Amino acid sequence: MALPLLQIALDNLSIEDAINSAKKASKYIDVIEVGTILLASEGKKAITELKKTFPDKIIVADGKIADAGKVFGKMFFENGADFITTICAAETATMADLVQFAKTYGPNKEIQVEMTNNFSWQQVQEWKQAGVPQVVWHRARDAQAAGVKWGQKDIDTVAKLAKMGFKVTVTGGVEIEDIKLFKDIPIFIFIAGRSIRDAKNPEMAAKEFKDEFKKYWK
Amino acid sequence: MALPLLQIALDNLSIEDAINSAKKASKYIDVIEVGTILLASEGKKAITELKKTFPDKIIVADGKIADAGKVFGKMFFENGADFITTICAAETATMADLVQFAKTYGPNKEIQVEMTNNFSWQQVQEWKQAGVPQVVWHRARDAQAAGVKWGQKDIDTVAKLAKMGFKVTVTGGVEIEDIKLFKDIPIFIFIAGRSIRDAKNPEMAAKEFKDEFKKYWK
Repeated sequence: MALPLLQIALDNLSIEDAINSAKKASKYIDVIEVGTILLASEGKKAITELKKTFPDKIIVADGKIADAGKVFGKMFFENGADFITTICAAETATMADLVQFAKTYGPNKEIQVEMTNNFSWQQVQEWKQAGVPQVVWHRARDAQAAGVKWGQKDIDTVAKLAKMGFKVTVTGGVEIEDIKLFKDIPIFIFIAGRSIRDAKNPEMAAKEFKDEFKKYWK
Repeated sequence: MALPLLQIALDNLSIEDAINSAKKASKYIDVIEVGTILLASEGKKAITELKKTFPDKIIVADGKIADAGKVFGKMFFENGADFITTICAAETATMADLVQFAKTYGPNKEIQVEMTNNFSWQQVQEWKQAGVPQVVWHRARDAQAAGVKWGQKDIDTVAKLAKMGFKVTVTGGVEIEDIKLFKDIPIFIFIAGRSIRDAKNPEMAAKEFKDEFKKYWK
């Protein structure tokens, strides 16, 4: 199984802050996420500036698109995004539109469906048929705050999604000790946000994730 | 039944464009929506500028919040939003958080859950128990483009939501001739976007909606 990639989620409120956060850990980061919070705060300019600062990284625009796929797709891809997210509540027509639309921007431009607990496997089948390449399994921040931990249901869901052929990203307060929970699954990307951004030494924190990946994947 | 309010959705790409669109019809508009597209394009500044230009209108920030309720709630309310939207995929914990958080900003600050076809009535019950005051029934733009019309299922869903005590907004390419479909239901808000923005005479188009409301509600 390939080594998972490491993605830093930039949920800062300003572009300047976000760039500073990313710079502190960039050596060990593969993917930089323009978080939904940053996007709502600063707008599409956040994507442009991050791509300009980190031209060699994969940039994810976490727009959680619910509708009007092509309008958002155009906005995000043309401002420098490589991957863009949709939210699982979107109708399948929106996913299907975006899958085709992404291809017009190049072979490495892809969409990801961000999943909450509110989805059905019927929808997942429809995404697969529509050609969606990536999904994001998301443990909610507000659920974490309410004390919800990673559980067997998360692991089983992620394993099932990977088995269906999706490239799977895992996110939601991921910490070093959570990595091993997913060890038998081909994870495409792990996202860390606060556990890197808020670390005393963000570069070291990012390196620790990469070292942990090497223990279980090669 | 009270007269429905008329909301203009500003899905422009720039704040300037959005303000111009709203000005052309503002006489007959009750609620101004900072659309998700505008928010992604320009960021939270779009809310500030719209509220500044139209201090007497209700301002909706259509952020379709999926998580991190308080971070977005603070951002949107403190920049001038009166109502803010969440997406139906969000966990109930996020809705519950936001219901309480909105109250700290004043009695007229409320949240709306934007609904796609991907929801369950179990979720709707949970929103009700969490004290969610408003829901938005949304016919997807991409589904419209694929030829999906308003159907009996839309009408029945909206009627059921209203009967449960939610203040219901109806949106998704609403045109004058669609209004009568909802005539026996206490609709809180109808949203018109392109049918006002793209009209030759936006003020007249808005007035026609209000006149139509008066035929069926009083």
